[in-house]
Amino acid sequence: MTFSVTILGSSSALPTSQRFPAAHALNVHERLFLVDCGEGTQIQLRKYKQKFSRLEQIFISHLHGDHVLGLFGLISTLNLLGRTAPLTIYAHAPLQTILNQNLQFFIGDLHFQLEFVPLDNKEKKIIFEDKSLIVESIPLKHRIPSTGFIFREKPKQPNIRKEMIEKYTIPLADIVKIKEGADFISADGQHIPNSDLTFISSPPRSYAYCSDTKYFEKLADMVKDVDLLYHEATFGNDLSQMARDTGHSTATQAAQTAQQANARKLVIGHFSSRYKDTDVLVNEARQIFSETYAAQEGYEFKIESQRMDL
Amino acid sequence: MTFSVTILGSSSALPTSQRFPAAHALNVHERLFLVDCGEGTQIQLRKYKQKFSRLEQIFISHLHGDHVLGLFGLISTLNLLGRTAPLTIYAHAPLQTILNQNLQFFIGDLHFQLEFVPLDNKEKKIIFEDKSLIVESIPLKHRIPSTGFIFREKPKQPNIRKEMIEKYTIPLADIVKIKEGADFISADGQHIPNSDLTFISSPPRSYAYCSDTKYFEKLADMVKDVDLLYHEATFGNDLSQMARDTGHSTATQAAQTAQQANARKLVIGHFSSRYKDTDVLVNEARQIFSETYAAQEGYEFKIESQRMDL
Repeated sequence: MTFSVTILGSSSALPTSQRFPAAHALNVHERLFLVDCGEGTQIQLRKYKQKFSRLEQIFISHLHGDHVLGLFGLISTLNLLGRTAPLTIYAHAPLQTILNQNLQFFIGDLHFQLEFVPLDNKEKKIIFEDKSLIVESIPLKHRIPSTGFIFREKPKQPNIRKEMIEKYTIPLADIVKIKEGADFISADGQHIPNSDLTFISSPPRSYAYCSDTKYFEKLADMVKDVDLLYHEATFGNDLSQMARDTGHSTATQAAQTAQQANARKLVIGHFSSRYKDTDVLVNEARQIFSETYAAQEGYEFKIESQRMDL
Repeated sequence: MTFSVTILGSSSALPTSQRFPAAHALNVHERLFLVDCGEGTQIQLRKYKQKFSRLEQIFISHLHGDHVLGLFGLISTLNLLGRTAPLTIYAHAPLQTILNQNLQFFIGDLHFQLEFVPLDNKEKKIIFEDKSLIVESIPLKHRIPSTGFIFREKPKQPNIRKEMIEKYTIPLADIVKIKEGADFISADGQHIPNSDLTFISSPPRSYAYCSDTKYFEKLADMVKDVDLLYHEATFGNDLSQMARDTGHSTATQAAQTAQQANARKLVIGHFSSRYKDTDVLVNEARQIFSETYAAQEGYEFKIESQRMDL
């Protein structure tokens, strides 16, 4: 089952000829979730073959233009494409007024329901949950209220070991119970614990999006043990003062958070336009956290679990 | 002296993976004028190496999102880049309110002056003029008020034929007068008419932008003798009813206007996303007007004069 994130935009406020403003397309079991929606997101979605019809929810981290300005055009396009399925937008409350003003001016009547969910940035909390996915919000620290997100697969039912079914001739009715966690009593009265009968084929995976934010220690706790951590790295360590002043992070700080969080993999992005080549930032981060990769338009990161103990 | 247009966007309302929404970058003697500003225009400007610092004026044809939605991000970027030179926007009046709402929300304080000039769509008229350029507005016919633009170089002073200067030993003071149109009386009392003394090295050139519009006969009169006519061709002739219903033109109609206008060259664009390959539209137009070319992102059309009689 697919669980991957495709980078649509890796630039910070000033896009370049190669880098679009912030947007990530998250594929969870062929359902599409968009995190941030900078200018040109709809074009990047098309370019990288993300299906508009699968888009269910949009999460906006904060209300700077480079994370928002693709929203009006994307919604207009969904409307022109004849969408009827509802669309949910999670964002800080002030977006709602300017969003409505733009939709009213540029679109008029929407043919689908747009649900707006204001983000509460006080503490880490669950903002969405269904049978396969949990989404949590994380308060970040930026010049304006900014929120990160963690997307977690829900644990799947365990698989039953085939050799056990044969060995103990387990009836179908019991197989259902065992999948739900029951032990099994065999025909000769032997007690077989559930853990001997089952295995987890694919442990639940998780992806965290942390942008924009300056470095702060508590963030690592909030994204503890995440499989793929996306963390902004607007600057290199030589510009740490500028990072502090502007509420951003350095590549070193992104790596520190990944290390402290025991993340499996780190993807850095939101690069300042001064970095023509991002190797300098990746190399800087790898000195602390070797599994660091640069966000790049069109690159799909498959999210893999590190929880081998499950 | 450069006079050329670079296509930044050739799509209609639905951009594709290859085609951005409407925007043309017009280079007039290294001064930059933008016509329409669809989503992603700032990225296209960078990609095709158009210098932001040279941008003087923006002309918005009409207030559909695919011609406007790049404006907020572009202005934000100009502000971040430290622009101080004023910027003029010509557009239909209702844009001003939503533009200000967005600038207020996403930018706050602008470091440069933004002048807004509302378009009057009643008749063809001059909306800008300086020593080298005249811009005229043309009322088009679309579902909402829509305006085309003609950019005309001003006639340059003629050059003096060097052999005449030598032949008649023309003094410097007279050369200035001859350039302004005077005849010359030689030392031996001979009257030399101005036309024998001078030649026009580069006749003034012109470019017209007509999008969005349905076909109407009077348009050809309004763009009479233009050197490069850009005319929308959203559909092929088989969809002429759809073109009529939506206030757009077919490739055939664009070619008819070019022919009736005695244009030198026709560029068609604003293609419906149904045309993966625009050859079908170009071929259709060429049956009527052979000098037809397809707009394509990044392509620079050099505008050349057809007025050889000057």
